[in-house]
Amino acid sequence: MPPSDHRPGTLIEGGAVFPHRHLTGIEGLEPHEITFLLDEAERWVDAAPGGPEKRLAGLTQINAFFENSTRTLLSFEIAGKRLGADVVNMHAAQSSVKKGETLIDTAMTLNAMRADVIVIRHMSSGAVRLIADKVDCPVLNAGDGRHEHPTQALLDALTIRRRLGGVANRRVVICGDLLHSRVARSNILALTALAAEVRVCAPSTLMPPAIERFGVTPFTDFDAAMEGADVVMMLRLQTERMAGGYVPSVREYHLRYGLTLDRLERRAPGALVMHPGPMNRGVEIDSAVADHVERSAITEQVAMGVAVRMACLDVLTRRRRGVEGWA
Amino acid sequence: MPPSDHRPGTLIEGGAVFPHRHLTGIEGLEPHEITFLLDEAERWVDAAPGGPEKRLAGLTQINAFFENSTRTLLSFEIAGKRLGADVVNMHAAQSSVKKGETLIDTAMTLNAMRADVIVIRHMSSGAVRLIADKVDCPVLNAGDGRHEHPTQALLDALTIRRRLGGVANRRVVICGDLLHSRVARSNILALTALAAEVRVCAPSTLMPPAIERFGVTPFTDFDAAMEGADVVMMLRLQTERMAGGYVPSVREYHLRYGLTLDRLERRAPGALVMHPGPMNRGVEIDSAVADHVERSAITEQVAMGVAVRMACLDVLTRRRRGVEGWA
Amino acid sequence: MPPSDHRPGTLIEGGAVFPHRHLTGIEGLEPHEITFLLDEAERWVDAAPGGPEKRLAGLTQINAFFENSTRTLLSFEIAGKRLGADVVNMHAAQSSVKKGETLIDTAMTLNAMRADVIVIRHMSSGAVRLIADKVDCPVLNAGDGRHEHPTQALLDALTIRRRLGGVANRRVVICGDLLHSRVARSNILALTALAAEVRVCAPSTLMPPAIERFGVTPFTDFDAAMEGADVVMMLRLQTERMAGGYVPSVREYHLRYGLTLDRLERRAPGALVMHPGPMNRGVEIDSAVADHVERSAITEQVAMGVAVRMACLDVLTRRRRGVEGWA
Repeated sequence: MPPSDHRPGTLIEGGAVFPHRHLTGIEGLEPHEITFLLDEAERWVDAAPGGPEKRLAGLTQINAFFENSTRTLLSFEIAGKRLGADVVNMHAAQSSVKKGETLIDTAMTLNAMRADVIVIRHMSSGAVRLIADKVDCPVLNAGDGRHEHPTQALLDALTIRRRLGGVANRRVVICGDLLHSRVARSNILALTALAAEVRVCAPSTLMPPAIERFGVTPFTDFDAAMEGADVVMMLRLQTERMAGGYVPSVREYHLRYGLTLDRLERRAPGALVMHPGPMNRGVEIDSAVADHVERSAITEQVAMGVAVRMACLDVLTRRRRGVEGWA
Repeated sequence: MPPSDHRPGTLIEGGAVFPHRHLTGIEGLEPHEITFLLDEAERWVDAAPGGPEKRLAGLTQINAFFENSTRTLLSFEIAGKRLGADVVNMHAAQSSVKKGETLIDTAMTLNAMRADVIVIRHMSSGAVRLIADKVDCPVLNAGDGRHEHPTQALLDALTIRRRLGGVANRRVVICGDLLHSRVARSNILALTALAAEVRVCAPSTLMPPAIERFGVTPFTDFDAAMEGADVVMMLRLQTERMAGGYVPSVREYHLRYGLTLDRLERRAPGALVMHPGPMNRGVEIDSAVADHVERSAITEQVAMGVAVRMACLDVLTRRRRGVEGWA
Repeated sequence: MPPSDHRPGTLIEGGAVFPHRHLTGIEGLEPHEITFLLDEAERWVDAAPGGPEKRLAGLTQINAFFENSTRTLLSFEIAGKRLGADVVNMHAAQSSVKKGETLIDTAMTLNAMRADVIVIRHMSSGAVRLIADKVDCPVLNAGDGRHEHPTQALLDALTIRRRLGGVANRRVVICGDLLHSRVARSNILALTALAAEVRVCAPSTLMPPAIERFGVTPFTDFDAAMEGADVVMMLRLQTERMAGGYVPSVREYHLRYGLTLDRLERRAPGALVMHPGPMNRGVEIDSAVADHVERSAITEQVAMGVAVRMACLDVLTRRRRGVEGWA
């Protein structure tokens, strides 16, 4: 990624190894900063139950979710509670947002309650950065519009690194609705930063224009894209897309872009299979692949999610907690 | 209950006094195992505020509720928090279930987040056992379809035992919609296991066929059923039943199967009155009975609910926590 | 306020400085009791993160919200968690209320679960007092119908006291929908008790009859009301009011009762601007005023809210916790 969008204004003093105040996206992170977060996550992967040090004890983590989510919210909630934080959830459905309050007012309110870290999911691209600019505490992006979902990319990179020994030079195919996917966007940024060879595959209606500028190779033929892949990462097909005319039919989509066991064994028999969930079984992925004991890393991704989020919560609050070297 | 459905495959080594990995139902429990859970619950009944040992500190309890609930969810949440667990709630309304994710995928996801115990309520009978078979941690059934609601039966048995000195040989009348009630089903299993004399009473449209095989005596005449009862346990009449043609009218139902003070005093003047809540006052039970200071045990049932759930959470996680004798 | 509604039956022995069992409203509180709560709140204002003593450890706080709320619920949840309480939320949307359970049954249920303090918001005036009469633990009113919202009045008084050095003799103008506002009602009671000079301003359709008996001076001309004001407190205009014929149009309302920077600078250039939130920017208040760095105390109000709620939770549970002098 060009560092043009990198915003030095959000850099903090100290904590030289990770000088960012917020995690609004993968964009703007140096490769060694991504690696640092993955390394930090490793320590939480095998933390014994009841074992993790309550580093965030006394801190208030607000999960402000303006868009429905189960997995991501649950993952952040568990991550925060395991670290001892006081975690409170704010759901949009019951929020002042319905009363017409502006996003900025909501941010100012959360800030005034002395949140120590705010985790935000929002349906609008850029909403998280807007909030980050207004509050005194670190902000973590849990997915904003079509923009970014950085912790998803981190957990995917961690999963690949643990399963394949590294990310660099691995051939990763990302297949599905690239046009609307923040998961794809963050993954492309993270994987290319870590020197993976990234191929993207989608029907032309779901392929962003000029995607090559992200350093990836576009394919419309899934079989060709999969050739020699180390990792096949499938994206969820939102059912709205089918109604929207992007996809002729589910049957047709599955035929051309669905990951079947036959296709996997023919084109990339040793590849790791990934999916951010929730899966549409029988649409973008078949059960025989999703549940494949050796090939599928899908539940491992979920486990890595908690570890990555613990790492991000820990790292971003170090300055506040006065950790030496992060002041 | 015939032990035919007892599944030895879910037995765990050690913890000889309660060798079950999960609590999916009362079915399959030995009488001494039920008694053990009641004994364990006793210790939490009078625990001083702030007193209970934080036995579950560092453990993650996920309450996955696919069906709305207030009392049961609140009771499990309070029970877990009193024991020091990190408790997170997953509501179906905001869950991936709406996105078409399969139940098994949801279970695998919760499992991958390293839940230490999962509490599940689901509208489908058997859903809890399905999940229990897929996860590494203990699963507690908080009510599944028309199948079972084991902690309700345990709290009812505890209430009876504390108020009447025991369950064996007590005449318990369960009256109401037996056909659709998981509360009735679990109670019949628990009370007969504990050697109570169980009578069931319902209009013939709401009486399951061949209910005698459960070791209970069916009645359609409430007055006859109540004769000499030690306990009268009323079931909630779901308003849907009235629309469904099971009940001619609320007025008629109340006349024949409603518990009035007059009926109680005529047929079983010393009996304990119970109701799992929420009550339809004026339908299956009159306020004069529900609020009767000496006869009604309804709020005591709620209090016993928290104690019973603390006991179940404690016992089922002993193996995980490496408690001596439970490894 | 006339002490006629003061209910000595709810007074507790000991804790002479604040002998009330519940906080159902400002009505019935002596001025020194209000001041005591403000003094107690001061200690929590600057409590270091992670610093506050976990005074409520082991206690169960139930937030029973029968009406949607974000800010107030979040504020009470954070307050309780910062003090170490086990906080559980009960939302009406998922509650037995929908199943037709009476409010009293819900109260009895929460009580039976051994809540140590219950925080209630309800759409009906008086619902909170009804519940308070039925339970064994302290009850805190988080807003009931058009009746009271006492913690809002306390946080407003604290904000004024901190910014202006005191409340007595300050001229406070409360402007907006006085007819439907529990915020206005509690504020009028608290501010007059603390000897402020209170002016109220509203179109005649939104002005309660005979409001003078509360010791305030009514105005329909906002410019006249603002003359020499130390504080201008704006109320939210519920959009329902516009449909209800109370207000001719938003444009007209804004023209006559909206707080613009021009109006502020002309009539009360040094006044503190307050709003309970969420704001309708451009309706009752302009952004130039709401975001005015020196004049606006709106985000400070939010911060004081958490401190005031910590104080109320602490004070009301002292008797239960056996704090010396409060037994």
